[in-house]
Amino acid sequence: MDTRVTQLAELDLRAWSAERLDRVEQALSTWVAPDGPAGLGQAMRYAVLDGGKRLRPLLVLAAAEAVGGNMQAALRAACAVELIHAYSLVHDDMPCMDNDVLRRGKPTVHVQFGEASALLAGDALQALAFELLTPDDGSVPEPMQARLCRLLARAAGSAGMAGGQAIDLASVGVKLNEAQLREMHRLKTGALLQGSVLMGATCGEVTAVEQQALSNYGAAIGLAFQVVDDILDVTADSATLGKTAGKDAEQDKPTYVSILGLERSRVYAQELLAQALAALDASGLAETRALSALADMVVNRVS
Amino acid sequence: MDTRVTQLAELDLRAWSAERLDRVEQALSTWVAPDGPAGLGQAMRYAVLDGGKRLRPLLVLAAAEAVGGNMQAALRAACAVELIHAYSLVHDDMPCMDNDVLRRGKPTVHVQFGEASALLAGDALQALAFELLTPDDGSVPEPMQARLCRLLARAAGSAGMAGGQAIDLASVGVKLNEAQLREMHRLKTGALLQGSVLMGATCGEVTAVEQQALSNYGAAIGLAFQVVDDILDVTADSATLGKTAGKDAEQDKPTYVSILGLERSRVYAQELLAQALAALDASGLAETRALSALADMVVNRVS
Repeated sequence: MDTRVTQLAELDLRAWSAERLDRVEQALSTWVAPDGPAGLGQAMRYAVLDGGKRLRPLLVLAAAEAVGGNMQAALRAACAVELIHAYSLVHDDMPCMDNDVLRRGKPTVHVQFGEASALLAGDALQALAFELLTPDDGSVPEPMQARLCRLLARAAGSAGMAGGQAIDLASVGVKLNEAQLREMHRLKTGALLQGSVLMGATCGEVTAVEQQALSNYGAAIGLAFQVVDDILDVTADSATLGKTAGKDAEQDKPTYVSILGLERSRVYAQELLAQALAALDASGLAETRALSALADMVVNRVS
Repeated sequence: MDTRVTQLAELDLRAWSAERLDRVEQALSTWVAPDGPAGLGQAMRYAVLDGGKRLRPLLVLAAAEAVGGNMQAALRAACAVELIHAYSLVHDDMPCMDNDVLRRGKPTVHVQFGEASALLAGDALQALAFELLTPDDGSVPEPMQARLCRLLARAAGSAGMAGGQAIDLASVGVKLNEAQLREMHRLKTGALLQGSVLMGATCGEVTAVEQQALSNYGAAIGLAFQVVDDILDVTADSATLGKTAGKDAEQDKPTYVSILGLERSRVYAQELLAQALAALDASGLAETRALSALADMVVNRVS
C-alpha cells in the first residue's frame, strides 16, 4: 500500500484544520480592527471575516509546520495572504470588473458599502497585509519579514495575481489555447497559492531540495485549484458554491472545461494531485500529511 | 541673519533636484516595466512616468542624504513611495471616487485604458512598491528592507492614506471643524509625506533625537502641503495645476480656505514652514539644506 495513502488516513484533516482555522479567524478579527476611520474598518472586516475556506492560510501553516518554522511568523503570513485574497475578491466583484452581487452567500462589499468604499477597503487590505508581515515587536526576525514581503509582493503583483486578472479581463470572448489558459491561471490563482506554500516554508530553514519540492507542490495545487474551479462552475449550483454558478460559460470565458471537456478536466485534476503528492515525497520532509490532505481537499472538494 | 536662510541661499534646489529626479525617472522607467501582461504594464507606466513633481521621492532622498544613508535603498524607497502615490491617484480619479478626467494635463488612467484596467494597474502598483523594497540582490540589508516595508505599509493603509481617503469620502457636504479637517489631511496626504521622510531616515542610522526631529519636520510639511493645495485650488487655474481647479468648492468639500479663509490659510502655511525649519535645526543634523529647500518649495509653490 502506498505510504502516502496511509499517512492521509492517519491525519484527520478536519481536526487539524479546525484548530488552525480557529487561530486564523481570531488573528484576523484582531488585526482587521473595526475602528478604521469613517467605516473603512467595517468594510474591511466584512470583506475578510466570516467566510471562505481559508485554503491559503492553511497552506501557509501546513508548510510552516512541515519545515518546523516560526509559527508566529506563519500566523502573520497566513493572515497576510488571506488579506490579499480577500482584497482581490472585493475588487474583482466591482461593477467595472465581474459585477458580482453575491459572494460567500452574502451581498458583495460594493453592494453593501458602495463602490468607493469597496475600492478603498481593498486598497487598505493590501497595505494591511504588508503591515502584518512587518511587526516591530521582535516576534519575527526582520530578515524573515523582508523575505515574506518579497514573496507576497511578487505573488500579488503584475507577475502574479494582478497580472493574471489582466489576462483574464482581456480574454473574455477570445479563444485561448490550453497553454495560454494555463499561463493565465498560473498567475491569477496559482501565484498566490504557490506563494502561500513558499511563505510557509520561509518561516523556517529549508534546503534547496526542500524549497524546490515545495515550489513544485505549490505549482501543482495552484493549477489543480483552477481546473476544479472550472469543473465546479459547470457541475455545482450557486447555493453550494456561495457564488453565482455558470458565470464563465455565460460570459464566454475560456475554461478548462470549455477547452478540454468535463471528463478530461477531471482526469487532469487527478494528475495534478498525483504531481503534488509526488513533489512532497521528493521533498524528503518528514511531516507532510497536512500538505497531502490539503492537496486532496483542493482536488476532491465539492464547493 | 538666520543661518537657515543663508543655507537656503547656498543650495541651488533646482540643480540638486534635477540630478535626483534624473535618477528617479530612470529607475521608475526600469522598474515599472512595459511588459506586464495584457497591457497592464503599459497602464502602470502611464500612471507613473512622465509627470508629477516627485516631491515624495525627493523627500526620501533628501532625508537619506541628511543621515548619510544607503543610497541604493533610498532610491528604491523613493520609487516605492511614488508608486503608492501614483496608485492612489489612479484609484482616486475613478468614476466611483472623484470621477476626474484630467490629471497632470493628460486623460486619467481610466479614461485612457478603461476602468477595470485602472483598478488593476493601481492594485499592481501597490504590490510593486513592496517588491521594489525587497530586492534579493543583496543591495539592501534585509532588516532595512523590513523596516522600509513597515513604514510604507503603515503610511499607505487605513491608519494612513487609505484611511484619510475614507474620511474625505464621508465628509462631502459635511461640516468639519479645523481639528477634524487636520486629522483627515494628516492621514490622507500627511502620512505618506511624513512616511517619505522617515523612510529616507531609515536608510541610515539615526539617533532618537534625529528621528523625532525628522518626524516633526515630516508632519509639518505634510500638513503644509495640504493647506497650500487648498489655497491653490482657489487661486490657480486648471492649466497651471494640470488638474481641475475649483473642484473642492464645487463638490462642497471642506478645505482650509473654507474654514480659515484665504488670508489665515496663507499665514498658517508660513507658520508650518517655520515649524518644519525649526525641527531641522533641532535635529542637529549637519546637512539639511535640501530638506529646508523642499519645505520652502512645498509652501511657496504656485502649482
